[in-house]
Amino acid sequence: MGFFSKNIKTMDDLFVHTLRDIYYAENQILQALPDMAKKSNDPQLKQAFQSHFAETKKQVGRLEQVFRLNGHEPTGVDCPAIDGIIEEADDVAGEVDDASVLDAALIAAAQAVEHYEMTRYGSLIAWAKQLGRNDCAELLQKNLEEEKAADKKLTALAESRVNQRAA
Amino acid sequence: MGFFSKNIKTMDDLFVHTLRDIYYAENQILQALPDMAKKSNDPQLKQAFQSHFAETKKQVGRLEQVFRLNGHEPTGVDCPAIDGIIEEADDVAGEVDDASVLDAALIAAAQAVEHYEMTRYGSLIAWAKQLGRNDCAELLQKNLEEEKAADKKLTALAESRVNQRAA
Repeated sequence: MGFFSKNIKTMDDLFVHTLRDIYYAENQILQALPDMAKKSNDPQLKQAFQSHFAETKKQVGRLEQVFRLNGHEPTGVDCPAIDGIIEEADDVAGEVDDASVLDAALIAAAQAVEHYEMTRYGSLIAWAKQLGRNDCAELLQKNLEEEKAADKKLTALAESRVNQRAA
Repeated sequence: MGFFSKNIKTMDDLFVHTLRDIYYAENQILQALPDMAKKSNDPQLKQAFQSHFAETKKQVGRLEQVFRLNGHEPTGVDCPAIDGIIEEADDVAGEVDDASVLDAALIAAAQAVEHYEMTRYGSLIAWAKQLGRNDCAELLQKNLEEEKAADKKLTALAESRVNQRAA
């Protein structure tokens, strides 16, 4: 979350900081997804990354709505967690030769991204509800449902195709 | 996963690299948990961190068994993802003054850790099964179940106590 200033005094502050964290993260993911799609070999996996790219653009739009509902301009804060997760994904893409093994590694990397997003949305939704901001909670819930669906799609892909071929 | 050498040629290689990734991560978490317990204010949260510390020690033991079942000595590889997640948790601990807001932030940080572990164990279990190593899959499944239970406990704590007081 990159809390380098002692600005977090209330749950509202914590909510906005974490919103900035996931806003930064979603924007980093937007930059990473086209490369993951390019590197993947399985056509269904490639397509999954491409459609999640379009979905992520809409999620960024919803986050911008949540910022505005809270009277803030959309801005990010450094998020070492997502930077680390994407750094690992890049390492995989560069260091595996075999096409099927690479696909399996890319799926695992993408699922680490999905799980990071799921946990942040889970916290944000709980806090929004406690702060009486059901309007924000509903928007964030849409993003969470999409991340869960993306994660399930990746699990199904891993189990049915890519890993079977690689093993 | 820190793939800095082109050693990943097969699914077996990917499995062992990811095992090294989570082994490093669990050991980093062992170092972080006592500090998180110390910083937390809610007695139930403090106790949750303490009991997860004991649990994590056992998980490291199970990972060492999995290494040996695969004919490898237990060793870690750098894992920028968990380093980033723990860095964020440290930022929180240092930058929030209010006790209840700090607890809410610590819970969110710990849940990011749990979700990272859950996704890595999910991939490892799928790969172990595909590689015909049900013995490894069973040990990893125990760790996964514990992480899921720890995550649920944190959600319940967040919803029932800490966040309510902070809001």
